[in-house]
Amino acid sequence: MAEHKVIFHIDELNKWELLLKNVTNLLDMVIQDRIVIEVLANAEAVLYYDNKHTAGNQILANLHEKGVLFVACNNALMGYKLNPQDIHSFVHIVPAGVYELMIKQSEGYAYIKP
Amino acid sequence: MAEHKVIFHIDELNKWELLLKNVTNLLDMVIQDRIVIEVLANAEAVLYYDNKHTAGNQILANLHEKGVLFVACNNALMGYKLNPQDIHSFVHIVPAGVYELMIKQSEGYAYIKP
Amino acid sequence: MAEHKVIFHIDELNKWELLLKNVTNLLDMVIQDRIVIEVLANAEAVLYYDNKHTAGNQILANLHEKGVLFVACNNALMGYKLNPQDIHSFVHIVPAGVYELMIKQSEGYAYIKP
Repeated sequence: MAEHKVIFHIDELNKWELLLKNVTNLLDMVIQDRIVIEVLANAEAVLYYDNKHTAGNQILANLHEKGVLFVACNNALMGYKLNPQDIHSFVHIVPAGVYELMIKQSEGYAYIKP
Repeated sequence: MAEHKVIFHIDELNKWELLLKNVTNLLDMVIQDRIVIEVLANAEAVLYYDNKHTAGNQILANLHEKGVLFVACNNALMGYKLNPQDIHSFVHIVPAGVYELMIKQSEGYAYIKP
Repeated sequence: MAEHKVIFHIDELNKWELLLKNVTNLLDMVIQDRIVIEVLANAEAVLYYDNKHTAGNQILANLHEKGVLFVACNNALMGYKLNPQDIHSFVHIVPAGVYELMIKQSEGYAYIKP
């Protein structure tokens, strides 16, 4: 069972580089199957999930393989006219990002906003 | 009794539009009397409560009617020379915004910083 | 025993002034030995701990004397080529800032990001 649970929140596109470095640093500190890491993107930050936005493709895929759960807010996807087929297939979609942030904290997740 | 409790933190004036959209999206997800939503503004963000700052008047009033509690840090109000009569009458004033953020989290509120 | 525990997170250099004001306001609200306040700096924010960066020297030292724990992320220190002897001697170093943020929240600390 996971000892640690954390949800990262990102709503600014230019914070992705820092966030992904944060997640990588965190993974270096723990045994992979003892932690649950979720990255919740809403607002403009969902644009980074666009599979035509190639800057982060490789690192997103690598971290996904290491168990990191990438999540997108559907309100934001609709606001930026992104369809589910426009974003990476491993990205999970939730109806409302802020609802997800609230629920996860009530389940004991720590909250970190880079 | 409320199932969900969340405190939104805002200290930058230009984040209000995003924050109010976040709050609106959250209200769409839940039954109104099953959630407590507080918005805590400190630093320059309290300027948005100025009743002469008309940009957000209508949406603040609408969300207040839907049960959202808007709160201002008194240290910030004093720093920006705003008196209680200068801000919307439905805004609650607390002595220190960061103390409020700490206490509410200890009472089980989730923390979200747009 | 401390009644209140809070961890402040800073990863932007230009947020220090606001953060230190926040911490000062919080200390004014509580009896000093009833609260634990930790300030966790990662990313570029660790540059403020450089003892050649004199802007904050006095206020950091004053708050340290009042019991505030200042912490630096070692990943960030290495990234900015800061050695332990380059930063204030009262700054505590942890291997990874985000791990510290996660652990402290699991121990009941509130999280505040100015």
